[in-house]
Amino acid sequence: MASRSATIPQAERLFDGNMHKSDVWSIFTPANVPADTINLGQGFMNWAPPRWIMDGLHEAMTSEVMINHYCHPRGRPKLIKALKNHFSPKFENLVKEGRELKDTEIMASAGANCGTYAALVAHVNPGEEVILFEPFFDQYFASIKFQGANPVYVPLHPPTSTTGITSGADWSIDFTELRKAFGPKTKAIIVNTPHNPIGKVFTRDELTKIAELCVEFNVMCLADEVYDCMLYDNVEHVRMASLPGMWERTITIGSGGKSFAATGWRIGWLIGDTPLISATLAAHSRLVFCTNAPLQDAVALGLDHAAEHSFWEDQLSAYQERRDILCSYFDQLGLSYTKPEGSYFVLVDMSPVQVPESFEVPKFLTDGGRGKDFVKCWWMCQEIGVVGIPPSEFYCKEHEKIGERFARFAFCKDPELLHAAGKRLLRLKEYMDPLHKTGANGANGTAA
Amino acid sequence: MASRSATIPQAERLFDGNMHKSDVWSIFTPANVPADTINLGQGFMNWAPPRWIMDGLHEAMTSEVMINHYCHPRGRPKLIKALKNHFSPKFENLVKEGRELKDTEIMASAGANCGTYAALVAHVNPGEEVILFEPFFDQYFASIKFQGANPVYVPLHPPTSTTGITSGADWSIDFTELRKAFGPKTKAIIVNTPHNPIGKVFTRDELTKIAELCVEFNVMCLADEVYDCMLYDNVEHVRMASLPGMWERTITIGSGGKSFAATGWRIGWLIGDTPLISATLAAHSRLVFCTNAPLQDAVALGLDHAAEHSFWEDQLSAYQERRDILCSYFDQLGLSYTKPEGSYFVLVDMSPVQVPESFEVPKFLTDGGRGKDFVKCWWMCQEIGVVGIPPSEFYCKEHEKIGERFARFAFCKDPELLHAAGKRLLRLKEYMDPLHKTGANGANGTAA
Repeated sequence: MASRSATIPQAERLFDGNMHKSDVWSIFTPANVPADTINLGQGFMNWAPPRWIMDGLHEAMTSEVMINHYCHPRGRPKLIKALKNHFSPKFENLVKEGRELKDTEIMASAGANCGTYAALVAHVNPGEEVILFEPFFDQYFASIKFQGANPVYVPLHPPTSTTGITSGADWSIDFTELRKAFGPKTKAIIVNTPHNPIGKVFTRDELTKIAELCVEFNVMCLADEVYDCMLYDNVEHVRMASLPGMWERTITIGSGGKSFAATGWRIGWLIGDTPLISATLAAHSRLVFCTNAPLQDAVALGLDHAAEHSFWEDQLSAYQERRDILCSYFDQLGLSYTKPEGSYFVLVDMSPVQVPESFEVPKFLTDGGRGKDFVKCWWMCQEIGVVGIPPSEFYCKEHEKIGERFARFAFCKDPELLHAAGKRLLRLKEYMDPLHKTGANGANGTAA
Repeated sequence: MASRSATIPQAERLFDGNMHKSDVWSIFTPANVPADTINLGQGFMNWAPPRWIMDGLHEAMTSEVMINHYCHPRGRPKLIKALKNHFSPKFENLVKEGRELKDTEIMASAGANCGTYAALVAHVNPGEEVILFEPFFDQYFASIKFQGANPVYVPLHPPTSTTGITSGADWSIDFTELRKAFGPKTKAIIVNTPHNPIGKVFTRDELTKIAELCVEFNVMCLADEVYDCMLYDNVEHVRMASLPGMWERTITIGSGGKSFAATGWRIGWLIGDTPLISATLAAHSRLVFCTNAPLQDAVALGLDHAAEHSFWEDQLSAYQERRDILCSYFDQLGLSYTKPEGSYFVLVDMSPVQVPESFEVPKFLTDGGRGKDFVKCWWMCQEIGVVGIPPSEFYCKEHEKIGERFARFAFCKDPELLHAAGKRLLRLKEYMDPLHKTGANGANGTAA
C-alpha cells in the first residue's frame, strides 16, 4: 500500500502547469549561489530596526505579563490605536468625512502575507477570478490558487524604449484589455502601489479608471500598499480605498516589517470597511488564531514614537540615497531602468547584456523551461557575483516573455554594500553588445 | 447594486449549521462578563515566560541584524537545531534506529495553530474526511471545513459514574465505532494527547489500536502533543509517530507557547517524515511565508538552556501544585471530575449544580440553541464570578448532549488566583441538589 507520504494533493493542485516546481527564491537562495555573492535578490534590509524600539520592547515584555500571551484575534489594543492614529489622516475619504478609522476597520495580521491570504480565504470562492497586474508579487498566485480560484492576468506594458531612464508611467495599462478581464466571475483585483518589482506608483488617473471598473463590475480590491513609506521625489501616493465608491470594496494591506526594517517580525495589518475586515478577521483567526503579541507592541511603539525620532524622514532619505547609489552604476553602464518612484526595487533592462555562449546553463534551468532572464541572472550571480531576480517568475507562462528582458535589484542594503555591488556590476560592460558600450543615461560609461 | 461588503462567502460556508455564529470564546470573553470575574476559561498562563529567555532575546535582537529579518520558511537554524536536540531522544523509533531527527523532518510554524492548518492545507483535499475524537479543540473543525473537507466525529465516551474522581481511561473509545468512521474518503485522524479539554493521556494500548487502523486504512495522523511538558504522576506519554508503521504517516505538533508560558509568541513546530513536512512547509510558506524570527530564537534559547535552569522540573511541579489546588475545591464540593494526567485543564461534572429557575437566560443563548452547559457556565460567571468553558462547543450538534454535563476549568493560573476562584466555587454548594450536599471524593463538604 502506498505511503501517505507520497501524496501532496494541494501542492500538486497548486502547480498545475502554470508555475515551476522550485520557485525563484529557492534557486537564488544564498545556499545555492557562490558564498561571496552580493545578494540584491530578496527584499530585506541589511540593517536592524531602531534600537529604541527594541529597548522599549524588552521593557514591555519584562514588565507586562499579558504582552506575552494570546491577544484578541483583531490585535493588541496598542497596535490598533497606533494604526488608527497613523492612518486616519492618510485616507482622503475619511479626512473629507471628518472622521477617524474605527477599531472594527482595522486588524493586525501575521505579516502582510497572511493578511492577504486571509482576505482571499474570507472573500473569494472556488471558481471565482482575481485580476492581477503583471509583473505580480508571486505569493498572490499561490494564495489565489489555494482558494480554488483563478488568477486573470493583465500585463503592465513595459516601456517601448530600451535606452535611457524610464518612469513608472511608462509601464502602461491598456484599459481595453483591463475591461476585458472583468466578467461575471471576477471577485477581486489586486493593486500593488508602490509596485514590486517595478517601483511604479500608480497615478490618480490610473487608479480612478481601475476604481470605476471595480464599481461597474462590483468587484473588490486588495490594495497592497506595503511600500507606502518609500515614496521618492514627492510623488503623489493615492490610496485606492479613498477613491469614490471604493471604501466599501477595498482592503488596504500594510506592513510593519517594511515600515521599520523588521521583515522577520511578521506584523502586518489590514484596513477597510467593517464587513470586509470582520470576515477577514474570522478567517485569519482560524489560520493563526492571533498574531504574535510582543512584536505588535513593538510596531505600535514605532508608530507612536516615529515622529519624535524623525524616523520617517531619516529612513526615507536613506532609501532615496540608496536608490541613487545603485542607479548611478546602471547610469555608468548605460543600462536602461525604470527610476523607482516608490518601493526599494529597481527593474533594469538587461537586453544589451549577452551571456557568453560558452556558459554552461545548468540542467535545472533548462529542464524547468525557465525564461531567458533566469539564465542571465544565474550567469550574473556566478560570473559577476551579484544576485538579481529574473522577473519572468512574476508573469503567467503565456506572458513571461514580456518580463524576460529585465532583472530586479533590491536597494534596501547599506551604501557600502550597494557600492560594492555596483562596482561588480560595472563588469557587465564586458558582456554588452557594442552599440551600448559607450554608455548612455547622460553618464560616462566606465568600461572595465 | 449590492455592496461586496455584504458577501462573506467562505465564512458562511464554514458555518453550515454545524457551528454557532458566535463561538464560545466570544461569549465568555472578558469584555462580556462582569469585570471582577475570575477567568479560568481560556488557556493562557497569568505569568510571564522566564526572564532569562527575554533578556537573551533582547541581547540577540540588538546584536544580530538577521534575527529581525525574513528567515528560511522552515525556520531559524537555531530553533531547528534546538528542536532536533530536544526531540530526537523523545521518539522511541528514532532511539531504536539510533538516529537523530533530520533538518528536513522539522519545521517551525506560526503557532501550533497555523502548523495544524498548513498540514491540512497540504494533505487534505476537498471532499475528504478527517476523524476527530469528541470533545475536540474547536479550531480543528474550522481548519478542516476551510479545506472543503468534512470532519467525522467519534466521541470519547465519558465516565459512567457521576460521582468521585475519574481517570482519563474512563473516557473510553468504542473501537467498533472508531473502525466504522474509517472509510475510502478518510484522509487523516487528529489525536490530541495530552487531551484538551479532558486532561486524558492516551494509553499505549489505545494509541496502538488507533495506529493499526491508520495503517490498515492508509490514513495520516496529526498528533497534537502541545501539552507534552505537562504530564503528571509519571504517566507514560506515548508518541503516536513512534509506533510501528506510523512515522511515515504522522505529523507531530508542538508549541513553544505552551512549553514556555508564552502563548502570544506564536511559535509552534511540526515534526515528521520528510515528505509530510516538505508538503506542509510548501503550504505554510504560502500562508505566512515564514514564522516570526526573533521569537523563534527565544524559544531556541529556552530549549537549549532549560536544563541548566531546571526549568522543566520546576514548571512541571508548579503545574502539578496548581492542578491539586483547583481540584481540592471540587473535592470539597463533592463534584466529580477527571483527574488531569496531562494538560492544564480539568473537566468537572456539573450535573449536581442546578441553575435557579429564576435566572433569566439571555436571549443570545436561547436563540443560539446552545447546550445546557452554556446556560450553566453563563450563570456561573454571573453569580459565582468564575468563568469555565461549556464543552458542548467541542462536539458536533448531534453529539453535544454528551458534553453538556461538564465544564472545563483551566489551572494555568497562579496559586493565589486558583484559591480565590476555588473559594468562590464553594458557593456552588448552595445550588447543588440535596443528594450531593454532603460532599464526596473523600473530603468534607464545606457548605458556604
